Amino acid sequence: MCNEMFNLAIVGLGGMGNWHRELIEGIDNLTVCGTYDIKEDRQAFAREHGINPYNSFKELLEDEKVDIVLCATPNDVHKEIVISSLKAGKNVICEKPAAMSSLEFKKMVDIAEEMDKVLVVHQNRRWDEDFLTVKKIYDEAILGNVFRIESRVHGSRGIPGDWRQEEEHGGGMLLDWGVHIIDQACMMINERIKSIYARFTHVTNELVDDGFTAELEFESGLIYVVEVGTSNFINLPRWYVLGQNGTAVIDDWNLRGKVVRITDSSKNDAIPIRTAAGLTKTMAPRTEETIKEEALKIVNSDVKDFYRNVMGAIRGEEEILVKNTEVMRVIKLMESIRESVIKKKVIEL
Amino acid sequence: MCNEMFNLAIVGLGGMGNWHRELIEGIDNLTVCGTYDIKEDRQAFAREHGINPYNSFKELLEDEKVDIVLCATPNDVHKEIVISSLKAGKNVICEKPAAMSSLEFKKMVDIAEEMDKVLVVHQNRRWDEDFLTVKKIYDEAILGNVFRIESRVHGSRGIPGDWRQEEEHGGGMLLDWGVHIIDQACMMINERIKSIYARFTHVTNELVDDGFTAELEFESGLIYVVEVGTSNFINLPRWYVLGQNGTAVIDDWNLRGKVVRITDSSKNDAIPIRTAAGLTKTMAPRTEETIKEEALKIVNSDVKDFYRNVMGAIRGEEEILVKNTEVMRVIKLMESIRESVIKKKVIEL
Repeated sequence: MCNEMFNLAIVGLGGMGNWHRELIEGIDNLTVCGTYDIKEDRQAFAREHGINPYNSFKELLEDEKVDIVLCATPNDVHKEIVISSLKAGKNVICEKPAAMSSLEFKKMVDIAEEMDKVLVVHQNRRWDEDFLTVKKIYDEAILGNVFRIESRVHGSRGIPGDWRQEEEHGGGMLLDWGVHIIDQACMMINERIKSIYARFTHVTNELVDDGFTAELEFESGLIYVVEVGTSNFINLPRWYVLGQNGTAVIDDWNLRGKVVRITDSSKNDAIPIRTAAGLTKTMAPRTEETIKEEALKIVNSDVKDFYRNVMGAIRGEEEILVKNTEVMRVIKLMESIRESVIKKKVIEL
Repeated sequence: MCNEMFNLAIVGLGGMGNWHRELIEGIDNLTVCGTYDIKEDRQAFAREHGINPYNSFKELLEDEKVDIVLCATPNDVHKEIVISSLKAGKNVICEKPAAMSSLEFKKMVDIAEEMDKVLVVHQNRRWDEDFLTVKKIYDEAILGNVFRIESRVHGSRGIPGDWRQEEEHGGGMLLDWGVHIIDQACMMINERIKSIYARFTHVTNELVDDGFTAELEFESGLIYVVEVGTSNFINLPRWYVLGQNGTAVIDDWNLRGKVVRITDSSKNDAIPIRTAAGLTKTMAPRTEETIKEEALKIVNSDVKDFYRNVMGAIRGEEEILVKNTEVMRVIKLMESIRESVIKKKVIEL
């Protein structure tokens, strides 16, 4: 059983489609057996890389050797491709966000169940090492009781100049990056979310959000801020985690960062500091006597485990890691975020 | 007229009272002629510094040579001291927050008008150089259209261990630091505030807020975030300013920071970057071809101008810089922030 080979066909060979193609090259028992793209240059690109491009999506579905269809098209056509593939008896890996709405996703999941096939969404950023490193800090209560987590993704290029700029194709940063960092929040904090408050930005694009800030309030009172910015020429840290006994920061994708923890809460070493026009004891930095700076303990990961798990699930040997109930929860949270923005109010869940 | 001397008496010789005493030593035509404090050690402290401590507040008020009473007591006794001083025919400088409520402040202002005396609130952080430096960036549109400003004050000592921990004395960080950074927001952005959303933290204190985050939405849509934290062992930057064409950051009280501006918006130099579990074109940093990093242009200031202006206003020669209408606006904004926290909703103004 363990040596069973799987053939995977990629639909949509843009940036992410090609990312999958490259990654899969290094995975045992999994082969990209073909691709299909509506753009001729991408069909040619596949050919150059020794992969047979199907002449049509229909031809791809009719190829009995295809076990898994990987859908990496613009968001608005996921539904059609996923449902057709499931109905053709294929297992499906779908790029995120899986669907344009929770209703749409429900239909996809229903058909997967009906056909008894695996449908799994590519929430690859569960394997991001910055996320796993913060999750470990949270899980092990390194900072004591955590009361606030800020998860930011900042860039300065606006929205990429493709379908991501258009609402009808499922564009905008909430769907593009939001889906990842909200999923991470749900994977980190094992609690119900009580309320949501959010705002979009429209700095470079009026049609879709080119950034957003959303505050998720978990059951325990923990505040988790998720933020995406695409007009940020200087970035705030990727992660900022506040606990009762310390703070952790991860600055960037290179996992630069640190942890600062209190070592002696009995000592009050406050010496007021002077600014141009005032003095402050409250905001005076601590001396080294009462705090300790530590390096981050980086958690390593291998995103190829995503594909290995999909194969294990198809074989019936493993539980799928990215569960559709989890994906559905994130889609619904994104709907609440949109509702909060439109109504300009706090949404109680 | 210009050489007219003013005698000032300080009521409350704690941290801020003494800060005033020291500053005033270097100001022409202004003398600290006495102090009064309910604590004997502070009366002794005054004596050691060559200043006569009055035996009672009544004695201070009855001293005809006192032109100005400076009130630097806990917040809940400002009203009583300010009103008594005004009624005794004195001009008054009052520490911030001037009052526990807008109603209380209105009474104080009414009596000042009735007595035809100057009542001015010590909003000294209008002279903070970090604030003035950001204000200049905003005023001169260095970053193009500014769409978001984040003004944070972070420390890790909790609330100072005095009356600031108790609600009945006007404790909490909203009143302590909030009053400054909200005042700065109002001085920087010459617009109406449309709505407010805020949250308190209670990490080290249940009775009063030991920090808060408030989002002020100005008429033009500009979002201005004010935040105070006292359990932050690593600080986020003091200022983070986002404009259409660039970003400015001031890291700390030492005015470390920078401006990054776009120089060529036509060039798309995006090369996708790879993280542990994904790739992103959107969040790829820009190359040096299209942006330019610049040093901050620091604006210098002299907080002694506050006292000089008070003297000018008493003489009738200058308009007062810190206007009571402005102070009232900030107090009302703080009331709306509190309302937002209690009702857990966006407050439309």
